[in-house]
Amino acid sequence: MCRFLAYRGEPIFLADLVCAPAHSLVHQSLHAVEAKTGTNGDGFGIGWYGERNEPGLYREVRPAWSDENLRSLCDQVRSRLFFAHVRASTGTSTTRSNCHPFTHGRHLFMHNGQIGGYGRIKRRLEALIPDDLYDTRVGTTDSEAIFLLALANGLGADPVAAMARTLKTVRCLMDEAGIDEPFKFTAAFTDGESLFAYRWSCDAKPPTLYFREERGGLLVVSEPIDDKDRGWREVPKGCTLVARAGEAVRVECLNEAMSRLAA
Amino acid sequence: MCRFLAYRGEPIFLADLVCAPAHSLVHQSLHAVEAKTGTNGDGFGIGWYGERNEPGLYREVRPAWSDENLRSLCDQVRSRLFFAHVRASTGTSTTRSNCHPFTHGRHLFMHNGQIGGYGRIKRRLEALIPDDLYDTRVGTTDSEAIFLLALANGLGADPVAAMARTLKTVRCLMDEAGIDEPFKFTAAFTDGESLFAYRWSCDAKPPTLYFREERGGLLVVSEPIDDKDRGWREVPKGCTLVARAGEAVRVECLNEAMSRLAA
Amino acid sequence: MCRFLAYRGEPIFLADLVCAPAHSLVHQSLHAVEAKTGTNGDGFGIGWYGERNEPGLYREVRPAWSDENLRSLCDQVRSRLFFAHVRASTGTSTTRSNCHPFTHGRHLFMHNGQIGGYGRIKRRLEALIPDDLYDTRVGTTDSEAIFLLALANGLGADPVAAMARTLKTVRCLMDEAGIDEPFKFTAAFTDGESLFAYRWSCDAKPPTLYFREERGGLLVVSEPIDDKDRGWREVPKGCTLVARAGEAVRVECLNEAMSRLAA
Amino acid sequence: MCRFLAYRGEPIFLADLVCAPAHSLVHQSLHAVEAKTGTNGDGFGIGWYGERNEPGLYREVRPAWSDENLRSLCDQVRSRLFFAHVRASTGTSTTRSNCHPFTHGRHLFMHNGQIGGYGRIKRRLEALIPDDLYDTRVGTTDSEAIFLLALANGLGADPVAAMARTLKTVRCLMDEAGIDEPFKFTAAFTDGESLFAYRWSCDAKPPTLYFREERGGLLVVSEPIDDKDRGWREVPKGCTLVARAGEAVRVECLNEAMSRLAA
Repeated sequence: MCRFLAYRGEPIFLADLVCAPAHSLVHQSLHAVEAKTGTNGDGFGIGWYGERNEPGLYREVRPAWSDENLRSLCDQVRSRLFFAHVRASTGTSTTRSNCHPFTHGRHLFMHNGQIGGYGRIKRRLEALIPDDLYDTRVGTTDSEAIFLLALANGLGADPVAAMARTLKTVRCLMDEAGIDEPFKFTAAFTDGESLFAYRWSCDAKPPTLYFREERGGLLVVSEPIDDKDRGWREVPKGCTLVARAGEAVRVECLNEAMSRLAA
Repeated sequence: MCRFLAYRGEPIFLADLVCAPAHSLVHQSLHAVEAKTGTNGDGFGIGWYGERNEPGLYREVRPAWSDENLRSLCDQVRSRLFFAHVRASTGTSTTRSNCHPFTHGRHLFMHNGQIGGYGRIKRRLEALIPDDLYDTRVGTTDSEAIFLLALANGLGADPVAAMARTLKTVRCLMDEAGIDEPFKFTAAFTDGESLFAYRWSCDAKPPTLYFREERGGLLVVSEPIDDKDRGWREVPKGCTLVARAGEAVRVECLNEAMSRLAA
Repeated sequence: MCRFLAYRGEPIFLADLVCAPAHSLVHQSLHAVEAKTGTNGDGFGIGWYGERNEPGLYREVRPAWSDENLRSLCDQVRSRLFFAHVRASTGTSTTRSNCHPFTHGRHLFMHNGQIGGYGRIKRRLEALIPDDLYDTRVGTTDSEAIFLLALANGLGADPVAAMARTLKTVRCLMDEAGIDEPFKFTAAFTDGESLFAYRWSCDAKPPTLYFREERGGLLVVSEPIDDKDRGWREVPKGCTLVARAGEAVRVECLNEAMSRLAA
Repeated sequence: MCRFLAYRGEPIFLADLVCAPAHSLVHQSLHAVEAKTGTNGDGFGIGWYGERNEPGLYREVRPAWSDENLRSLCDQVRSRLFFAHVRASTGTSTTRSNCHPFTHGRHLFMHNGQIGGYGRIKRRLEALIPDDLYDTRVGTTDSEAIFLLALANGLGADPVAAMARTLKTVRCLMDEAGIDEPFKFTAAFTDGESLFAYRWSCDAKPPTLYFREERGGLLVVSEPIDDKDRGWREVPKGCTLVARAGEAVRVECLNEAMSRLAA
């Protein structure tokens, strides 16, 4: 289980959210409170949008709490949209390629959760990813595989339906393999303009996910970075937070989107 | 193109071959002479047999020439059979998981060469690896994929025939994909007792590979670690050096083994 | 505050103590219980004696819990005397050079604790180290400075008196600088034969330190690696555990040794 | 011997100089031509000025040529003043803290060269650095020691005189210690506005240093990043390139400044 944070709004220094708050993401790398694992020291990453269409990416295998480069970057880089992630590995090795966020063209994706029994469906899952997307796979995580499959399913065009289809597919593979362990999935995705945050699990116990709107900005977090009563709202279980560019933030039912596919 | 070294014989300190000689492998990491790339600074690894059935493994992403840990280990560890490898990446990222040698149970494998156009056959190649072996894949290199496919083809039982079959299969995948770039392959494989070294290429220009026998020991290298006239012999192109435990070292024709498969 | 472990006795695989026990040192890197900081993820190191006079050394900046190399080494290396240390930095940066144990010739040293207000006496402390020893300083920690000063004070010849003198000197520097923060010091030192473990603090609250003798072996730990009632004894505050080669283990009073110097 | 690059002018993406040119600094990390060592793979660093008074800093121990983070940062970060450095160690270990550039408040400094016999004067050199500056020392290189001593000598207020004094002092220490090896020094320094580049050596054979002015910008390099005839001028031996904010670039004699001190 990992911890993450996504921001969209007026350009701010990354440090304002990643490093400065009392319970900042860097602090959570050592002392997370709403996760099964309090320590998230198996690498980290930040992705941000600046002047280019494509996001910048800095990922490292060291713990976030001791990385001077991360501190310096967060102090310098100001962005209107960025992701930050601290990792607690669920088995795959600690390499930069396995750290979140993942990028594809102008898209960013990060994940907290786990496909239960991943090893038993890994090949079948990868086999569903088209060649051109598979060729961009740099690591070995379930998270990256989900991202690539979702891209193949149209994540860029319809982020809710595409993710619903992806989750459903993974769930089917797990059923076929007779896997009992749960599939837990909270994640964030952006194309550099709109922001989507998912909270789902096959056992109705998805990891926590919160959001807060203030001064025109939107903040999405695994757990609050300051006092829980300071305007944080939970993303409901089985739902997607949809923050399209220029539209009001709203919540869509992911379970429903999955049911429609079933029909 | 990488540089490697394999030793079997009386137990010696790894440093005697990896660090001490004038043109040691550590020296080659900075100044290789018979390779297209003089610098082999994209990680390194050593694998050695001690008291366990399974070999020890130390792999790092830093260049070999500046790694204090490597120097200390090579000074301390004495072994009757070990592999050492310095890497020049042909495209995949510099992670420990992509460094050689690779291990599977009591086996070690390392590779110097490249599958031309690998990205275009990667998925099809991986699809040929059985689930249980695929589940042990930790990196993303062509080298590891070849190793796992060869294991599936019976590398442990018949190292020459299994590798011939594997090379042939990769060659077919490349043909089907219309790949013109060559497939170059020099490699070493051991089960902890017998040692095999392959030199093959589809364009008759395989990377160099030498061996020397002295005082009951066998040394196999990408390029000589001391004067070229000190008893080094080339492994002929298209051949395998076969050094079975308790038998005299001999050379077998790999091309012939591949032809037999074709029949 | 860090966690460490020292072993002397029949040669055993490092893994038997560093990785295998329920509350092994690797486990403590993530979940220490008797330390102020539960996470010791700012690098680690092992030092061991094999066939050479000088010990082997493997130090890394990554957390111990995710390091495949550490696991492999501990599985392979069998030693009659070894140190292992997981680090929680008290301010200095996370580089290999700042990881314990430190080595000098055939000696090993590791430390858990802190010189309060170190930055204010660092230069004066370093100025007391003779040139030839100072030239071997590779990092920037207070721990390494203490080690080098103790060596200058005769650590090799009389480990208790030399360390008493060193602690006294540091204490004086702190007094002169008007430092109120405490100086806490638990440490282990060996010349490859005899083993010494120190537990001292200027505020009578030194970090914990335990030892256990069994089957002719001696184990010294920051905190027990298995059930606390399995024969663990505390090293008393202000004392040194003295385990000279060929003699019974005994406890000497460090405070007394310091007082004698005062006279 | 290292390779470096400094830029001041219209804000540009770092990639335009660090990664893109035919003989970019990243290319030089693998294939430098005017240096004794063609490979500069012992870490690297970039420092740049953005919206803060203090520069951003990214330093890593891996070779520049394989670092994805460096590529991404250089693609994203646009700056009006930046330093970039690829390192070939002259003996000190490869840690982030030993990588250039070094920073102090709003200042940046980087160095190519070496104090001959550094180990024999290290302590005396460090003893000349005032406590408050010494407390900021994070590594163990001669380069950082020179920077700190120069700061103590007034580098911020008078960069030519202060560096002259510093070089003279180091030279005296070397003389006293009877050191015959040369002291070679090319370096760059900035306060975020003005830029200074030094080229000096006690044996009249300082490392190369070039500059080029174009479109209002100034570029200073260890060796040209494109064709040598494209407007590159050498900084004369024993001189400082002085590029004060708002003034024309000019060359001042460093040897003369040192002589004045002698008087």
